[in-house]
Amino acid sequence: MDGQPIERGQRLSRAAAQRLSLYLRCVAGWPTDGEKVSSRSIADAVGVSDAQVRRDLAALGHLGQRGVGYDSQDLVAAIRGALGIDREWRAVLVGVGNLGRALLKYHGFRAQGFAIVGLFDSDPSKVGTEVEGFTVEPVAAVPERVSALRAELGVLTVPADTAQAVSEALVAAGVRGILNFAPVVLKLPRAVRLVTVDLAIQLEQLAFQVRHGDARTADDD
Amino acid sequence: MDGQPIERGQRLSRAAAQRLSLYLRCVAGWPTDGEKVSSRSIADAVGVSDAQVRRDLAALGHLGQRGVGYDSQDLVAAIRGALGIDREWRAVLVGVGNLGRALLKYHGFRAQGFAIVGLFDSDPSKVGTEVEGFTVEPVAAVPERVSALRAELGVLTVPADTAQAVSEALVAAGVRGILNFAPVVLKLPRAVRLVTVDLAIQLEQLAFQVRHGDARTADDD
Repeated sequence: MDGQPIERGQRLSRAAAQRLSLYLRCVAGWPTDGEKVSSRSIADAVGVSDAQVRRDLAALGHLGQRGVGYDSQDLVAAIRGALGIDREWRAVLVGVGNLGRALLKYHGFRAQGFAIVGLFDSDPSKVGTEVEGFTVEPVAAVPERVSALRAELGVLTVPADTAQAVSEALVAAGVRGILNFAPVVLKLPRAVRLVTVDLAIQLEQLAFQVRHGDARTADDD
Repeated sequence: MDGQPIERGQRLSRAAAQRLSLYLRCVAGWPTDGEKVSSRSIADAVGVSDAQVRRDLAALGHLGQRGVGYDSQDLVAAIRGALGIDREWRAVLVGVGNLGRALLKYHGFRAQGFAIVGLFDSDPSKVGTEVEGFTVEPVAAVPERVSALRAELGVLTVPADTAQAVSEALVAAGVRGILNFAPVVLKLPRAVRLVTVDLAIQLEQLAFQVRHGDARTADDD
């Protein structure tokens, strides 16, 4: 590596972006003893083919040399750049139940460059209390506070029946992407990005795979 | 509908199975006032094309009549059959932290036919306590208890550094599918199905979409 800027992977598919996230999780967790990382070791760890790893990493620009492997730090930087997480993303969390608390305690967010900067709940008994170093603010304060906090992302851990209204308030306050854990299909302006993690759907998909003996591969495009 | 058995969708792709989960979530949530459900109303609710909905539902067998729409109960039954959730799935949960508690309180699991039948944790201070009606059992009891409980699925909400060992114990005890929330890539026998919900990866994918203005569609095959 000669320090040249890595090309942005604007044309990455979502499947490729998900694989890059997995590669990043592996490589960032390996000890940095100065040794090179091979595409084969990543492939084995993630469960995709060696050729797939090489194709995905080739799309990020000039990384590594044939037969030598990749420098682990360069690789991490290149993947983070391609995914757009080479800078801090500020997010607010709405809904301070068990799931919200679990997410707040989850160190992976900050490690990956995501900073939770505000906490909101509609329950008056929670508003004003301290949770993980934050003072819980009322949902009614979202319009004013989200822009003051310069939050771009919203994490939604509210019940299904309030998720649509809360997401609209977040969008009106300038949030550009929502990570939704409420088991409901949100209707948002197309310019707003939405990732929904419906836990029952995840379990349904698992049951479907067990039932039908679907082959398990991480490169299931 | 004349009550004929619905063909099993053995050849459903994972993407199609995910869309069916979303259709199910919508249709099952609508009031059952005896009116037919149109493919258009499902398409609008989920955010896919009308043609996509009709194609997906046609693959389930003879459902609905042209111009008349689908009977909501028949549709729910057909989708549940295709996904393999037309029967109960017994699951154990390992890791009784905030996330585990959130999942236990989540009524969507039982509503979709998933029964949590046992709770395990390695923390001696948690073992023996009551959580959501269960007595927490030690992880060391997994080999004996999981088969006694006839659990087929395992939900893993343990820290990353114990996830591999716990998942191997679950597999040895007969679990055929694992829903993993630990931020780690598990290595399991290929016959065991694995769905990993890595919350930092979900947030990374959201950031990627916000950064690159990726078009948001639910039929992103």
